[in-house]
Amino acid sequence: MREPGSPLRVIAVDPGLTRCGLAVVDIAQNRSATLVDVKVVGSANTETIGNRLAVIDQAVESMLDQYAPHHMAVERMFAQNNTPTVIGTAQASGVVIAAAARRSVPVALHTPSEVKAAVTGNGNADKNQITSMVTRILRLAEPPRPADAADAIALAVAHAWRGGLYGRGLDTGKLTSRRTSSKFPTANKTGSLTPAQQAWLAAEKRGSR
Amino acid sequence: MREPGSPLRVIAVDPGLTRCGLAVVDIAQNRSATLVDVKVVGSANTETIGNRLAVIDQAVESMLDQYAPHHMAVERMFAQNNTPTVIGTAQASGVVIAAAARRSVPVALHTPSEVKAAVTGNGNADKNQITSMVTRILRLAEPPRPADAADAIALAVAHAWRGGLYGRGLDTGKLTSRRTSSKFPTANKTGSLTPAQQAWLAAEKRGSR
Repeated sequence: MREPGSPLRVIAVDPGLTRCGLAVVDIAQNRSATLVDVKVVGSANTETIGNRLAVIDQAVESMLDQYAPHHMAVERMFAQNNTPTVIGTAQASGVVIAAAARRSVPVALHTPSEVKAAVTGNGNADKNQITSMVTRILRLAEPPRPADAADAIALAVAHAWRGGLYGRGLDTGKLTSRRTSSKFPTANKTGSLTPAQQAWLAAEKRGSR
Repeated sequence: MREPGSPLRVIAVDPGLTRCGLAVVDIAQNRSATLVDVKVVGSANTETIGNRLAVIDQAVESMLDQYAPHHMAVERMFAQNNTPTVIGTAQASGVVIAAAARRSVPVALHTPSEVKAAVTGNGNADKNQITSMVTRILRLAEPPRPADAADAIALAVAHAWRGGLYGRGLDTGKLTSRRTSSKFPTANKTGSLTPAQQAWLAAEKRGSR
Protein backbone atom coordinates (compact mmCIF):
# COMPACT_ATOMS: atom_id res chain seq x y z
CA MET A 1 0.00 0.00 0.00
CA ARG A 2 1.08 3.52 -0.74
CA GLU A 3 1.32 6.06 2.08
CA PRO A 4 -0.75 9.21 1.51
CA GLY A 5 1.50 11.89 0.00
CA SER A 6 4.30 9.48 -0.88
CA PRO A 7 5.44 9.09 -4.48
CA LEU A 8 3.53 6.78 -6.78
CA ARG A 9 5.81 4.04 -8.11
CA VAL A 10 4.80 2.86 -11.58
CA ILE A 11 6.23 0.01 -13.60
CA ALA A 12 5.48 0.55 -17.27
CA VAL A 13 5.90 -2.04 -19.99
CA ASP A 14 6.12 -1.46 -23.72
CA PRO A 15 5.63 -5.09 -24.70
CA GLY A 16 7.36 -7.00 -27.47
CA LEU A 17 9.23 -10.27 -27.95
CA THR A 18 12.28 -8.79 -29.67
CA ARG A 19 12.41 -5.61 -27.60
CA CYS A 20 10.35 -5.21 -24.43
CA GLY A 21 10.89 -1.96 -22.55
CA LEU A 22 10.41 -1.97 -18.77
CA ALA A 23 10.66 1.22 -16.73
CA VAL A 24 10.15 1.92 -13.04
CA VAL A 25 9.45 5.57 -12.25
CA ASP A 26 8.53 7.36 -9.02
CA ILE A 27 6.12 10.26 -9.48
CA ALA A 28 5.63 12.69 -6.61
CA GLN A 29 2.39 14.48 -5.75
CA ASN A 30 3.81 17.61 -7.39
CA ARG A 31 4.18 15.48 -10.57
CA SER A 32 7.97 15.48 -10.60
CA ALA A 33 9.26 12.16 -11.87
CA THR A 34 12.37 10.18 -10.92
CA LEU A 35 13.74 7.26 -12.89
CA VAL A 36 14.31 4.21 -10.67
CA ASP A 37 15.32 1.65 -13.31
CA VAL A 38 14.84 0.96 -16.97
CA LYS A 39 15.80 -1.94 -19.18
CA VAL A 40 15.02 -3.40 -22.56
CA VAL A 41 14.92 -7.20 -22.79
CA GLY A 42 14.08 -9.58 -25.61
CA SER A 43 15.28 -12.40 -27.81
CA ALA A 44 15.81 -13.31 -31.45
CA ASN A 45 12.89 -14.77 -33.37
CA THR A 46 14.91 -17.95 -33.87
CA GLU A 47 14.15 -18.80 -30.22
CA THR A 48 11.09 -20.88 -29.30
CA ILE A 49 8.01 -18.95 -28.22
CA GLY A 50 8.30 -20.55 -24.78
CA ASN A 51 11.85 -19.27 -24.35
CA ARG A 52 10.94 -15.84 -25.72
CA LEU A 53 8.05 -15.38 -23.30
CA ALA A 54 10.21 -16.73 -20.44
CA VAL A 55 12.67 -13.86 -21.00
CA ILE A 56 9.86 -11.32 -20.58
CA ASP A 57 8.32 -13.23 -17.68
CA GLN A 58 11.58 -13.39 -15.73
CA ALA A 59 12.38 -9.72 -16.34
CA VAL A 60 9.00 -8.42 -15.19
CA GLU A 61 8.80 -10.78 -12.21
CA SER A 62 12.26 -9.72 -11.11
CA MET A 63 11.42 -6.00 -11.34
CA LEU A 64 8.05 -6.45 -9.61
CA ASP A 65 9.78 -8.25 -6.72
CA GLN A 66 12.69 -5.83 -6.52
CA TYR A 67 10.78 -2.54 -6.77
CA ALA A 68 7.26 -3.39 -5.50
CA PRO A 69 5.53 -0.81 -7.72
CA HIS A 70 2.04 0.45 -6.84
CA HIS A 71 0.70 0.29 -10.39
CA MET A 72 1.54 -1.26 -13.74
CA ALA A 73 0.92 0.60 -17.01
CA VAL A 74 0.89 -1.35 -20.27
CA GLU A 75 0.39 -0.18 -23.81
CA ARG A 76 -3.16 -0.83 -24.92
CA MET A 77 -3.35 -2.86 -28.13
CA PHE A 78 -6.03 -3.02 -30.75
CA ALA A 79 -6.96 -5.78 -33.17
CA GLN A 80 -6.58 -3.16 -35.90
CA ASN A 81 -2.79 -3.23 -35.29
CA ASN A 82 -2.57 -5.79 -38.06
CA THR A 83 1.21 -6.09 -38.17
CA PRO A 84 3.13 -9.37 -38.38
CA THR A 85 4.26 -8.99 -34.76
CA VAL A 86 0.86 -8.20 -33.19
CA ILE A 87 0.32 -11.74 -31.88
CA GLY A 88 3.73 -11.94 -30.20
CA THR A 89 3.33 -8.45 -28.74
CA ALA A 90 -0.09 -9.35 -27.33
CA GLN A 91 1.32 -12.56 -25.85
CA ALA A 92 4.10 -10.59 -24.16
CA SER A 93 1.56 -8.11 -22.77
CA GLY A 94 -0.52 -11.00 -21.42
CA VAL A 95 2.52 -12.36 -19.59
CA VAL A 96 3.35 -9.04 -17.90
CA ILE A 97 -0.27 -8.31 -16.96
CA ALA A 98 -0.62 -11.79 -15.42
CA ALA A 99 2.60 -11.24 -13.44
CA ALA A 100 1.13 -8.03 -12.00
CA ALA A 101 -2.22 -9.71 -11.29
CA ARG A 102 -0.45 -12.47 -9.32
CA ARG A 103 0.86 -9.74 -7.01
CA SER A 104 -2.43 -7.78 -6.92
CA VAL A 105 -0.74 -4.83 -8.65
CA PRO A 106 -3.48 -2.95 -10.53
CA VAL A 107 -2.94 -2.65 -14.27
CA ALA A 108 -3.88 0.30 -16.47
CA LEU A 109 -3.83 0.39 -20.25
CA HIS A 110 -2.97 3.47 -22.30
CA THR A 111 -2.83 3.87 -26.05
CA PRO A 112 0.32 5.19 -27.72
CA SER A 113 -1.48 8.39 -28.70
CA GLU A 114 -2.65 8.92 -25.10
CA VAL A 115 0.95 8.56 -23.95
CA LYS A 116 2.27 10.91 -26.60
CA ALA A 117 -0.41 13.49 -25.79
CA ALA A 118 0.23 13.29 -22.05
CA VAL A 119 4.01 13.65 -22.36
CA THR A 120 4.41 16.01 -25.32
CA GLY A 121 0.96 17.58 -25.69
CA ASN A 122 0.72 16.07 -29.18
CA GLY A 123 -0.91 12.69 -29.79
CA ASN A 124 1.07 12.32 -33.01
CA ALA A 125 4.50 13.17 -31.60
CA ASP A 126 7.46 11.34 -33.16
CA LYS A 127 10.09 9.26 -31.36
CA ASN A 128 12.51 12.18 -31.10
CA GLN A 129 9.94 14.35 -29.36
CA ILE A 130 9.12 11.55 -26.89
CA THR A 131 12.80 10.98 -26.13
CA SER A 132 13.42 14.71 -25.76
CA MET A 133 10.50 15.23 -23.37
CA VAL A 134 11.33 12.11 -21.33
CA THR A 135 14.90 13.34 -20.93
CA ARG A 136 13.66 16.71 -19.66
CA ILE A 137 10.88 15.34 -17.42
CA LEU A 138 13.21 12.87 -15.71
CA ARG A 139 16.03 15.46 -15.57
CA LEU A 140 18.40 12.96 -17.21
CA ALA A 141 21.92 14.00 -18.20
CA GLU A 142 21.41 12.36 -21.59
CA PRO A 143 18.62 10.58 -23.48
CA PRO A 144 17.74 7.11 -22.17
CA ARG A 145 19.48 4.22 -23.93
CA PRO A 146 18.47 2.12 -25.75
CA ALA A 147 15.99 4.31 -27.56
CA ASP A 148 13.12 1.88 -26.84
CA ALA A 149 13.56 2.63 -23.15
CA ALA A 150 12.09 6.11 -23.66
CA ASP A 151 8.71 4.68 -24.66
CA ALA A 152 8.39 2.70 -21.45
CA ILE A 153 9.41 5.71 -19.36
CA ALA A 154 6.90 7.91 -21.20
CA LEU A 155 4.18 5.35 -20.47
CA ALA A 156 4.95 5.41 -16.74
CA VAL A 157 4.85 9.21 -16.60
CA ALA A 158 1.68 9.36 -18.70
CA HIS A 159 -0.02 6.87 -16.42
CA ALA A 160 0.65 8.95 -13.31
CA TRP A 161 -0.28 12.23 -14.99
CA ARG A 162 -3.45 10.81 -16.52
CA GLY A 163 -4.93 9.98 -13.13
CA GLY A 164 -2.83 7.23 -11.59
CA LEU A 165 -1.59 9.60 -8.90
CA TYR A 166 -5.15 9.87 -7.64
CA GLY A 167 -5.83 6.15 -7.74
CA ARG A 168 -8.86 6.35 -9.99
CA GLY A 169 -10.07 3.93 -12.64
CA LEU A 170 -6.84 1.99 -12.85
CA ASP A 171 -7.95 -1.30 -14.16
CA THR A 172 -9.73 -1.58 -17.46
CA GLY A 173 -11.29 -4.82 -18.50
CA LYS A 174 -11.76 -4.37 -22.20
CA LEU A 175 -8.83 -4.36 -24.53
CA THR A 176 -10.58 -4.74 -27.78
CA SER A 177 -12.92 -1.77 -27.96
CA ARG A 178 -11.90 1.76 -28.70
CA ARG A 179 -13.59 2.90 -25.52
CA THR A 180 -11.94 6.02 -24.19
CA SER A 181 -12.01 6.95 -20.57
CA SER A 182 -13.48 10.31 -19.75
CA LYS A 183 -12.23 10.13 -16.17
CA PHE A 184 -8.80 11.49 -16.95
CA PRO A 185 -7.67 14.84 -18.26
CA THR A 186 -6.13 14.28 -21.68
CA ALA A 187 -4.58 16.54 -24.21
CA ASN A 188 -7.10 17.11 -26.95
CA LYS A 189 -6.57 15.99 -30.51
CA THR A 190 -5.32 19.38 -31.66
CA GLY A 191 -2.24 19.05 -29.51
CA SER A 192 -3.00 21.58 -26.77
CA LEU A 193 -1.68 20.88 -23.28
CA THR A 194 -3.72 19.51 -20.41
CA PRO A 195 -3.90 21.53 -17.18
CA ALA A 196 -1.47 19.01 -15.66
CA GLN A 197 1.03 19.47 -18.45
CA GLN A 198 0.72 23.23 -18.29
CA ALA A 199 1.38 23.04 -14.54
CA TRP A 200 4.39 20.83 -15.10
CA LEU A 201 5.83 23.02 -17.81
CA ALA A 202 5.36 26.08 -15.64
CA ALA A 203 7.11 24.32 -12.74
CA GLU A 204 9.89 23.21 -15.08
CA LYS A 205 10.43 26.77 -16.31
CA ARG A 206 10.54 28.10 -12.76
CA GLY A 207 13.00 25.33 -11.79
CA SER A 208 15.39 25.98 -14.67
CA ARG A 209 15.62 29.73 -14.20
CA MET B 1 10.97 -37.09 -17.99
CA ARG B 2 8.89 -39.67 -19.76
CA GLU B 3 9.82 -43.35 -19.49
CA PRO B 4 10.35 -45.05 -22.88
CA GLY B 5 7.13 -46.78 -23.91
CA SER B 6 4.99 -44.97 -21.33
CA PRO B 7 2.04 -42.83 -22.44
CA LEU B 8 2.65 -39.26 -23.54
CA ARG B 9 0.71 -36.85 -21.33
CA VAL B 10 -0.32 -33.71 -23.18
CA ILE B 11 -2.00 -30.60 -21.80
CA ALA B 12 -3.74 -28.75 -24.60
CA VAL B 13 -5.10 -25.23 -24.37
CA ASP B 14 -7.64 -23.58 -26.64
CA PRO B 15 -7.04 -20.05 -25.39
CA GLY B 16 -9.61 -17.33 -24.80
CA LEU B 17 -10.61 -14.88 -22.08
CA THR B 18 -14.32 -15.74 -22.06
CA ARG B 19 -13.89 -19.46 -22.66
CA CYS B 20 -10.50 -21.16 -22.35
CA GLY B 21 -10.51 -24.92 -22.87
CA LEU B 22 -7.88 -26.98 -21.04
CA ALA B 23 -7.56 -30.73 -21.59
CA VAL B 24 -5.11 -33.30 -20.25
CA VAL B 25 -4.91 -36.47 -22.34
CA ASP B 26 -2.66 -39.54 -22.12
CA ILE B 27 -1.73 -41.01 -25.50
CA ALA B 28 -0.17 -44.48 -25.57
CA GLN B 29 2.45 -45.65 -28.07
CA ASN B 30 -0.32 -47.49 -29.94
CA ARG B 31 -2.02 -44.06 -30.27
CA SER B 32 -4.97 -44.89 -28.03
CA ALA B 33 -5.99 -41.83 -26.03
CA THR B 34 -7.38 -41.50 -22.50
CA LEU B 35 -8.96 -38.36 -21.10
CA VAL B 36 -7.40 -37.38 -17.76
CA ASP B 37 -9.19 -34.06 -17.15
CA VAL B 38 -10.86 -31.30 -19.09
CA LYS B 39 -12.29 -27.95 -18.08
CA VAL B 40 -13.38 -24.68 -19.58
CA VAL B 41 -12.59 -21.54 -17.57
CA GLY B 42 -13.11 -17.86 -18.28
CA SER B 43 -14.71 -14.63 -17.16
CA ALA B 44 -17.10 -11.95 -18.34
CA ASN B 45 -15.67 -9.03 -20.30
CA THR B 46 -16.83 -6.69 -17.54
CA GLU B 47 -13.88 -7.97 -15.47
CA THR B 48 -10.52 -6.20 -15.58
CA ILE B 49 -7.92 -7.65 -17.95
CA GLY B 50 -5.73 -8.44 -14.93
CA ASN B 51 -8.49 -10.48 -13.31
CA ARG B 52 -9.37 -12.18 -16.58
CA LEU B 53 -5.80 -13.31 -17.23
CA ALA B 54 -5.45 -14.37 -13.58
CA VAL B 55 -8.32 -16.85 -14.06
CA ILE B 56 -6.46 -18.46 -16.98
CA ASP B 57 -3.12 -18.30 -15.18
CA GLN B 58 -4.43 -20.01 -12.05
CA ALA B 59 -6.23 -22.73 -14.03
CA VAL B 60 -3.22 -23.66 -16.15
CA GLU B 61 -0.75 -23.49 -13.25
CA SER B 62 -3.00 -25.73 -11.18
CA MET B 63 -3.32 -28.32 -13.97
CA LEU B 64 0.41 -28.23 -14.75
CA ASP B 65 1.20 -28.86 -11.08
CA GLN B 66 -1.46 -31.53 -10.62
CA TYR B 67 -0.85 -33.55 -13.79
CA ALA B 68 2.80 -32.86 -14.72
CA PRO B 69 2.23 -33.20 -18.48
CA HIS B 70 5.18 -33.92 -20.80
CA HIS B 71 4.13 -31.45 -23.48
CA MET B 72 1.82 -28.48 -23.95
CA ALA B 73 -0.07 -27.92 -27.20
CA VAL B 74 -1.57 -24.50 -27.92
CA GLU B 75 -3.55 -23.26 -30.86
CA ARG B 76 -1.32 -21.32 -33.24
CA MET B 77 -2.64 -17.84 -33.97
CA PHE B 78 -2.11 -15.62 -36.96
CA ALA B 79 -2.22 -11.85 -37.25
CA GLN B 80 -4.72 -12.38 -40.05
CA ASN B 81 -7.27 -13.52 -37.43
CA ASN B 82 -8.52 -9.96 -37.35
CA THR B 83 -11.43 -10.51 -34.97
CA PRO B 84 -12.31 -8.24 -32.03
CA THR B 85 -11.10 -10.88 -29.57
CA VAL B 86 -7.72 -11.65 -31.19
CA ILE B 87 -5.75 -9.51 -28.73
CA GLY B 88 -7.32 -11.08 -25.64
CA THR B 89 -6.93 -14.57 -27.08
CA ALA B 90 -3.25 -13.93 -27.81
CA GLN B 91 -2.74 -12.56 -24.29
CA ALA B 92 -4.31 -15.70 -22.82
CA SER B 93 -2.08 -17.89 -25.01
CA GLY B 94 0.97 -15.95 -23.81
CA VAL B 95 0.02 -16.60 -20.20
CA VAL B 96 -0.34 -20.37 -20.67
CA ILE B 97 2.86 -20.68 -22.74
CA ALA B 98 4.82 -18.76 -20.07
CA ALA B 99 3.40 -21.05 -17.36
CA ALA B 100 4.67 -24.08 -19.30
CA ALA B 101 8.05 -22.43 -19.93
CA ARG B 102 8.48 -21.79 -16.18
CA ARG B 103 8.24 -25.57 -15.70
CA SER B 104 10.40 -26.43 -18.75
CA VAL B 105 7.40 -28.11 -20.41
CA PRO B 106 7.98 -27.90 -24.18
CA VAL B 107 5.26 -26.09 -26.11
CA ALA B 108 4.01 -26.93 -29.61
CA LEU B 109 1.69 -24.84 -31.73
CA HIS B 110 -0.86 -26.26 -34.13
CA THR B 111 -3.31 -24.45 -36.38
CA PRO B 112 -7.04 -25.22 -36.17
CA SER B 113 -6.94 -26.77 -39.64
CA GLU B 114 -4.01 -29.00 -38.66
CA VAL B 115 -6.01 -30.18 -35.64
CA LYS B 116 -9.14 -30.79 -37.70
CA ALA B 117 -7.16 -32.69 -40.33
CA ALA B 118 -5.37 -34.84 -37.75
CA VAL B 119 -8.55 -35.77 -35.86
CA THR B 120 -11.15 -36.01 -38.62
CA GLY B 121 -9.06 -36.29 -41.81
CA ASN B 122 -10.63 -33.03 -43.03
CA GLY B 123 -8.98 -29.66 -42.39
CA ASN B 124 -12.35 -27.95 -42.80
CA ALA B 125 -14.33 -30.18 -40.44
CA ASP B 126 -17.14 -28.50 -38.49
CA LYS B 127 -17.66 -28.48 -34.71
CA ASN B 128 -20.01 -31.46 -34.82
CA GLN B 129 -17.46 -33.61 -36.64
CA ILE B 130 -14.74 -32.65 -34.13
CA THR B 131 -16.98 -33.47 -31.18
CA SER B 132 -18.07 -36.74 -32.75
CA MET B 133 -14.51 -37.88 -33.46
CA VAL B 134 -13.22 -36.79 -30.03
CA THR B 135 -16.02 -38.77 -28.38
CA ARG B 136 -15.05 -41.88 -30.37
CA ILE B 137 -11.28 -41.48 -29.99
CA LEU B 138 -11.50 -41.04 -26.22
CA ARG B 139 -14.17 -43.80 -25.95
CA LEU B 140 -16.42 -41.39 -24.01
CA ALA B 141 -19.95 -42.42 -23.05
CA GLU B 142 -21.22 -39.06 -24.30
CA PRO B 143 -19.80 -35.94 -26.01
CA PRO B 144 -17.57 -33.79 -23.80
CA ARG B 145 -19.32 -30.88 -22.07
CA PRO B 146 -19.16 -27.95 -22.45
CA ALA B 147 -18.82 -28.09 -26.21
CA ASP B 148 -15.65 -25.96 -26.12
CA ALA B 149 -13.93 -28.77 -24.24
CA ALA B 150 -13.89 -30.89 -27.42
CA ASP B 151 -11.57 -28.44 -29.17
CA ALA B 152 -8.94 -28.66 -26.42
CA ILE B 153 -9.16 -32.47 -26.39
CA ALA B 154 -8.81 -32.58 -30.18
CA LEU B 155 -5.72 -30.38 -29.93
CA ALA B 156 -4.08 -32.76 -27.43
CA VAL B 157 -4.77 -35.80 -29.61
CA ALA B 158 -3.62 -34.02 -32.75
CA HIS B 159 -0.39 -32.99 -31.06
CA ALA B 160 0.48 -36.57 -30.15
CA TRP B 161 -0.53 -37.97 -33.50
CA ARG B 162 1.31 -35.29 -35.45
CA GLY B 163 4.67 -36.30 -33.98
CA GLY B 164 4.57 -35.45 -30.28
CA LEU B 165 4.73 -39.15 -29.38
CA TYR B 166 8.18 -39.29 -30.97
CA GLY B 167 9.46 -36.16 -29.30
CA ARG B 168 10.38 -34.34 -32.49
CA GLY B 169 10.20 -30.65 -33.30
CA LEU B 170 8.06 -29.71 -30.34
CA ASP B 171 8.88 -26.11 -29.84
CA THR B 172 8.33 -23.59 -32.58
CA GLY B 173 9.62 -20.09 -32.22
CA LYS B 174 7.67 -18.21 -34.83
CA LEU B 175 4.02 -17.55 -34.35
CA THR B 176 3.44 -14.98 -36.98
CA SER B 177 4.49 -16.64 -40.20
CA ARG B 178 2.45 -19.19 -42.07
CA ARG B 179 5.40 -21.58 -42.03
CA THR B 180 4.21 -25.17 -42.12
CA SER B 181 6.21 -28.01 -40.73
CA SER B 182 7.03 -30.85 -43.07
CA LYS B 183 8.32 -32.99 -40.21
CA PHE B 184 4.94 -34.41 -39.30
CA PRO B 185 2.55 -36.60 -41.23
CA THR B 186 -0.60 -34.59 -41.87
CA ALA B 187 -3.85 -35.32 -43.61
CA ASN B 188 -3.72 -33.67 -46.99
CA LYS B 189 -6.03 -30.88 -48.03
CA THR B 190 -8.43 -33.16 -49.86
CA GLY B 191 -9.42 -34.79 -46.59
CA SER B 192 -7.79 -38.22 -46.97
CA LEU B 193 -6.53 -39.95 -43.83
CA THR B 194 -2.92 -40.07 -42.71
CA PRO B 195 -1.34 -43.50 -42.16
CA ALA B 196 -1.66 -42.86 -38.41
CA GLN B 197 -5.36 -42.16 -38.69
CA GLN B 198 -5.90 -45.18 -40.91
CA ALA B 199 -4.10 -47.31 -38.33
CA TRP B 200 -6.20 -45.88 -35.55
CA LEU B 201 -9.46 -46.36 -37.42
CA ALA B 202 -8.48 -49.97 -38.23
CA ALA B 203 -7.67 -50.63 -34.56
CA GLU B 204 -10.94 -48.98 -33.52
CA LYS B 205 -12.90 -51.21 -35.88
CA ARG B 206 -11.14 -54.33 -34.59
CA GLY B 207 -11.75 -53.24 -30.99
CA SER B 208 -15.46 -52.61 -31.47
CA ARG B 209 -16.23 -55.93 -33.16
